[in-house]
Amino acid sequence: MSPQRSPSFLAEHVERLSRTHLRDLLRDTGRGERLRHRVGPILLDLSRQKLDAPALGALGAHVEASGWQAARDAMFAGEPINTSEHRAVLHTALRAGGSHLPSLAPREARQEIEQTLQRIERLIQAIERGEAASMGLPATITDVVNIGIGGSDLGPRLAVRALAPFHVPHMRSHFLTNVDGQAAHELMRQLDPKRTLVIVVSKTFTTQETLLNGNVLRDWIVRAYEGDARAATRHFIAVSANTAEAERWGVPASNVYPMWDFVGGRFSLWSAVGLSLALAIGMDHFRALLAGAARIDDHFRTAPWQENLPVLLSLIEYWNRNGLGTTSRAVVPYADLLGDLTSYLQQLEMESLGKQVTSQGQPATQSTSAVVWGSVGTNAQHAYFQALHQGTDVVPLEFIGVVRPAHTLRSNHDALLSNLLAQAAALALGKTFDEALAEVKSGDEAARRVLAAQRTFPGDRPSTLILLDSLTPESLGALIALYEHKVFMLGHLWDINAFDQWGVELGKVIARQILPALDGQVDDLTDFDSATRASIEAIQERREG
Amino acid sequence: MSPQRSPSFLAEHVERLSRTHLRDLLRDTGRGERLRHRVGPILLDLSRQKLDAPALGALGAHVEASGWQAARDAMFAGEPINTSEHRAVLHTALRAGGSHLPSLAPREARQEIEQTLQRIERLIQAIERGEAASMGLPATITDVVNIGIGGSDLGPRLAVRALAPFHVPHMRSHFLTNVDGQAAHELMRQLDPKRTLVIVVSKTFTTQETLLNGNVLRDWIVRAYEGDARAATRHFIAVSANTAEAERWGVPASNVYPMWDFVGGRFSLWSAVGLSLALAIGMDHFRALLAGAARIDDHFRTAPWQENLPVLLSLIEYWNRNGLGTTSRAVVPYADLLGDLTSYLQQLEMESLGKQVTSQGQPATQSTSAVVWGSVGTNAQHAYFQALHQGTDVVPLEFIGVVRPAHTLRSNHDALLSNLLAQAAALALGKTFDEALAEVKSGDEAARRVLAAQRTFPGDRPSTLILLDSLTPESLGALIALYEHKVFMLGHLWDINAFDQWGVELGKVIARQILPALDGQVDDLTDFDSATRASIEAIQERREG
Repeated sequence: MSPQRSPSFLAEHVERLSRTHLRDLLRDTGRGERLRHRVGPILLDLSRQKLDAPALGALGAHVEASGWQAARDAMFAGEPINTSEHRAVLHTALRAGGSHLPSLAPREARQEIEQTLQRIERLIQAIERGEAASMGLPATITDVVNIGIGGSDLGPRLAVRALAPFHVPHMRSHFLTNVDGQAAHELMRQLDPKRTLVIVVSKTFTTQETLLNGNVLRDWIVRAYEGDARAATRHFIAVSANTAEAERWGVPASNVYPMWDFVGGRFSLWSAVGLSLALAIGMDHFRALLAGAARIDDHFRTAPWQENLPVLLSLIEYWNRNGLGTTSRAVVPYADLLGDLTSYLQQLEMESLGKQVTSQGQPATQSTSAVVWGSVGTNAQHAYFQALHQGTDVVPLEFIGVVRPAHTLRSNHDALLSNLLAQAAALALGKTFDEALAEVKSGDEAARRVLAAQRTFPGDRPSTLILLDSLTPESLGALIALYEHKVFMLGHLWDINAFDQWGVELGKVIARQILPALDGQVDDLTDFDSATRASIEAIQERREG
Repeated sequence: MSPQRSPSFLAEHVERLSRTHLRDLLRDTGRGERLRHRVGPILLDLSRQKLDAPALGALGAHVEASGWQAARDAMFAGEPINTSEHRAVLHTALRAGGSHLPSLAPREARQEIEQTLQRIERLIQAIERGEAASMGLPATITDVVNIGIGGSDLGPRLAVRALAPFHVPHMRSHFLTNVDGQAAHELMRQLDPKRTLVIVVSKTFTTQETLLNGNVLRDWIVRAYEGDARAATRHFIAVSANTAEAERWGVPASNVYPMWDFVGGRFSLWSAVGLSLALAIGMDHFRALLAGAARIDDHFRTAPWQENLPVLLSLIEYWNRNGLGTTSRAVVPYADLLGDLTSYLQQLEMESLGKQVTSQGQPATQSTSAVVWGSVGTNAQHAYFQALHQGTDVVPLEFIGVVRPAHTLRSNHDALLSNLLAQAAALALGKTFDEALAEVKSGDEAARRVLAAQRTFPGDRPSTLILLDSLTPESLGALIALYEHKVFMLGHLWDINAFDQWGVELGKVIARQILPALDGQVDDLTDFDSATRASIEAIQERREG
């Protein structure tokens, strides 16, 4: 598919390992020790990945020669490593308060961050004490709606769901994202406008989807106050870098919380973008989330590559993608509460690393971001695991398990964990034709062989296992930070800018051209390509059906 | 990745088209006419796929030479085309009542199907008339919980969500799937056990996840009746091929609805497996769903390949997968109501087609099922579309749009549709380096060129557009049947059995071995591979943390 080739330093290892089955690699117990590492509540187990000590050593030598520590420190120090936008990348500064190492981030940034955390804390305390009105908010809040898309949605959504057992009582959280009016329509039927707090999250405060949904909810609340637009304003908080625009839209400046150029959307959960989360779980838990992430920051800053979880994760991805040539990775949490992790990682990884040009504007010499996909197990076993076991392509998996659940249904949890381990084992070990043949008892020899072929599992299919002791604000913060730094490392290894996203622009421009044509405000469609023209006509024809 | 090669008859076309950009193909308006076809409420637009008339002709000649019509008719006639299990494949017979063609299915099967539909109808009518007690059910039902996994979950889940605007009032639908106890835990906190009807769906009535969740809900309902297990039985309906086991578990025979060997789980929405859907939308709408599917059945049975939607969809998939070598396909509905379509298709396609052995037990000569992934737009634009536009790999997309929404928020819907068309256009057309350079106004020449390289879009990325007039039981039924027959065609083209799923078995066997070890009932772990052993020990160590 992609023209990129395997890096030459990996060739001998790829060649050697093509003759070794994972079943055999797993016989070496010493190998496993080198591939399993723990940091706090996270155990990272890479022992089911298809590589051996020499291959790992080659990857380590490669990363050591790459100057990764200097690149890492430049990020922590706030150097403008997002070169195409001349911006610093300081999501780590958002949680530096929980770090045990001195922060390298500029002092002004740290001050702004701490002030914002304090503002959020005051807000939450006021609501907890029933004094929301003193902050210019409705006196009673039963429902919080976060309106945002992409990075203004996926992080808070993931965390609010993952931490449902920590949710404060008497208040529900909702996420309104898609411009499809169906979502707003359903939400308005469910909620009481006079007890709803709406958080509009948009860095520029011009995001089409977010503003359209904001307008719909504003109209709905204004109607509840019989047209009194002023009364409705107290139901809105904005999180934005564009205070002026947020005010123009109708949010008082005192209810606008900041976003900064030095934090990208997909890294912004730790900022005021996480306000809906902080409201959902309370400030102590929100700070615990930051502390969990800071723990991984400290680890990333100090551990040698051999024990550095984000570095190891990036090297494994590099190995699978550029050494073995896989094109996607399935992320399969065995935890309903982590049901939104996959979509979070799709953005984090694919928007950061789905580039084909280096930071110097040259064509990337290797394949960059794989497709990230997946869903929760065991459900996935009954859906697409057939193809992962017996399909023609190898898809590396990433299993996430939680040792201690947030409920008391022990039989269910044991079944869940035994399935998780069983899938990882089955993928790695497989079942040979002879083993399958021995199980087929009936039929003549020819029929038995046909059936045995269909019941053979090639195995040799790699997976990573991440085990959390339990799902808490700390462990979730640590898990997300782990992935963030993995992404940083891959950007470094591939020499691409992981912090811009020019690829989202063209579609927006074309959408603005199509919108008036759909509305019938453009008579002459010949400026559009033939397919777009035909689609517009088909929509117009069927619209009035 | 996979060793399979492109079929030789496609080689010249692949070669020729490698020198033609989609931008140029789209200049030929006559080409579009051949690639856009309507059946009833569905418009299928393949004009943004990367092929020309000769390539399409070659694919058509290939399928015509393959005997596809005879294979299709064998399925409709109930021949045992699921050879590894010696079973007929008769999901089409489930909706034959809505067909305008004479059914080819065996008479006994059709009679059983019609009797079951009538039983479902009587049940629904009794509930609608407030006479549920006369059917041995609770007098008042406010909530219906469908317990099932895989094919016993994904179809009803997709359809209940997609048809939310058709949902009957005063009753809510829930789907309990994962063995993760969190789901059952949350459901029990929400619902009133005395007003809950539970449908346990399992062909064998031995599915681990389903039975564990069934036990949990049964205990909960028995507790509500202060230990009176008999009183609780009226809250349960079973859908199963194993009536004896369902009765043993505690469902009276009169409340067991059948499943049949001639319908596979992932094709079973149209059977009693759709009971939760029928309860949610009422019998008229359920029959309309069947009629929508039957319309596509008739089309599939009569249209020449050039206009046959399922055949065309299968040929495009074959072209992309085996001609162009793509490894995944992103399914992106621009409709929140179709949010579960992707996971439904993951099972339908990957479980059916993720095979590496032919029906004769020989290695498949070509790559089979691609990875199916995706999520709703516009959300996806703000997540992973960066990689689809500017990543190193080409991922074909499948866009699904709905012309007329089920709400009145017109601005939202216009924005939604304009984005859909814009993404398809941007992916196909791209933006050249020179166009990008002209837009970069500031910086010196070198800096401008670096930025322009990063803002260039290669384009030439194919997509399919499926446009539904509106989302109704009829159009949803038609859409699903379209995919079912596409899967049938691909199984035929690849010479694999699309109707078995041996790849799900090995994990189940290993899970049964691991379960007692997790519980500490196995002292000697040396029978396990080193990685499984280490994982079991890690879980045991952290369990008591």
